[in-house]
Amino acid sequence: MSYWLYYWPSIPGRGEFVRLALEDAGAPYVDVGRDQGATAVAQIMRNGEHFAPPILADESESVSHVAHILAWVSRPLELAPVDARDFRRMHQMQLTVTDFVAEIHDTHHPLGPSLYYDEQKEVAARRSAVFISDRLPLFLDYFERVLTDNPDSGGWAIGHRCTTLDLSLFHVMRGLRYAFPNALAELETPALDDLTRRIARRRRIADYLDSERCIDFNEDGVFRRYPELDRPDR
Amino acid sequence: MSYWLYYWPSIPGRGEFVRLALEDAGAPYVDVGRDQGATAVAQIMRNGEHFAPPILADESESVSHVAHILAWVSRPLELAPVDARDFRRMHQMQLTVTDFVAEIHDTHHPLGPSLYYDEQKEVAARRSAVFISDRLPLFLDYFERVLTDNPDSGGWAIGHRCTTLDLSLFHVMRGLRYAFPNALAELETPALDDLTRRIARRRRIADYLDSERCIDFNEDGVFRRYPELDRPDR
Repeated sequence: MSYWLYYWPSIPGRGEFVRLALEDAGAPYVDVGRDQGATAVAQIMRNGEHFAPPILADESESVSHVAHILAWVSRPLELAPVDARDFRRMHQMQLTVTDFVAEIHDTHHPLGPSLYYDEQKEVAARRSAVFISDRLPLFLDYFERVLTDNPDSGGWAIGHRCTTLDLSLFHVMRGLRYAFPNALAELETPALDDLTRRIARRRRIADYLDSERCIDFNEDGVFRRYPELDRPDR
Repeated sequence: MSYWLYYWPSIPGRGEFVRLALEDAGAPYVDVGRDQGATAVAQIMRNGEHFAPPILADESESVSHVAHILAWVSRPLELAPVDARDFRRMHQMQLTVTDFVAEIHDTHHPLGPSLYYDEQKEVAARRSAVFISDRLPLFLDYFERVLTDNPDSGGWAIGHRCTTLDLSLFHVMRGLRYAFPNALAELETPALDDLTRRIARRRRIADYLDSERCIDFNEDGVFRRYPELDRPDR
C-alpha cells in the first residue's frame, strides 16, 4: 500500500502532522507537492471534492482534514490504540489539536487567511498577546493533564503505545518553541517536554528530521517566528 | 437509549448542531444546561476529559467536538449514509462546516474568545469585511457544489437520505441569514436554500423550531446580528 500526500511544497504547515505519521510508520508515500510542484496540489483541488489541503490518497480513496486523515491511516500505520473507545478519544483530542493549531495560525492572521501578515501586523500583535496570556496556557495545561492522567502508559497520551496524537503533540511543541520561545520558557510543561524528547529519539523520526524530506519551520507556515508577536525576552 | 447534552443554556451556539440531530431523530435527551443551569455544564468540564462543550453522553460514554459527536450518534439516529466511504466523506465535510463556523464566530471575535465583542469591535468590522468578500463565497460555493454534485439523491449532501450534515448546513444557512442578511442577499445559493426549506418542513424539526426547547439566535452565540458587521443595506 502506497500513499500520496498532496500539500504545499515549501512549508511544514498542516501537512506535517500527516508526514510525521507516515515517516514514523515507515510507510511508502509520495510527497506530491515536493515531487511535482504546487500545481499538482492545485490540480487535485479542482475536482471540488476537498475544501483545502492536506489531502492523503491511497489507490482507492482520498481524504482531507488532518484529524480525519489521521483517524483514517492510524490503524493501518499501527499508530492507533487497539480499544475502540480509546480510538474515539484519540480522534476527539486530535480535534482539540486542530482547534489549537487554528488559534496558533490566527496569531499572525487575525483578519483571516486571505490577507498577508504585513497587512495585519498590528492586529496580530494584539491577538498574540491575548493568545499568550489566555489561550496558550489553557491548551497546554489540558494536554499536560491528558499525559499525566494516563500514568501507566509509558508516557503516551492514550492507551499504551505511541499514536498519531502523540506525534501531533510533538509537532505542536516543536512549532511553539520555534514561534514563541519566550512565552514557552515561562510555562511549565514537563510531560509534554518529555514526550517531545522521546519522540525526537524514535529512529525513523530522528532520520526524518535529519533528512532533506523535512522542511524547516519558516515564515510561511502555521508556526512563524515573528519576535514582535512573542513575549519580550527577559 | 437516552442522551444527555451538556451545553450553555442561553444560546443555540455549537450545541444546536447536536440538538437538531437529536430532535430530527426524535431521540430522548436531557438538555442538561437548560434543565439544571450552566453550573451543571461547568461541573462535567471539571473532570478534565473534554476541552470545551458541547458534550453528548449516553449511559456509558461522553463525547465532545460537534463533528465527532455527530459521527458518533448519526448511525444510531439513522442520520448517516449506509456506505462506509460515504460515512467518511460526511465526517470530512462536517469538519469543513466546523472550520466555516469557526470563521463565522471569528467575525465578531477576531482577537479571540476571551475578550468581549465591545473590546474588539473595530477589528471585528475589518475581519467581517474580509470574511464577506473572500471567505463566505468560497465556503458557500463549496457546499452548493456538494449538493449539485449529488444529483439523484433527492437533494441531500451525501447518499440518498437526510444526514446530520444536511441538518448542520440547514443551521448554518439559518444562522447566516440571521447574522448577515445583506451579504447573503447578494449571493446565489439555490441548492442550499432548497435544502433549508425542505428541512424546515420536516415534521420533527418544524415542531422543534416552534417549541420552547429551541433558543432564538441572539448576540451571545456564534451567529450574531451586528448590523455594523454586515454589508450595508442597498
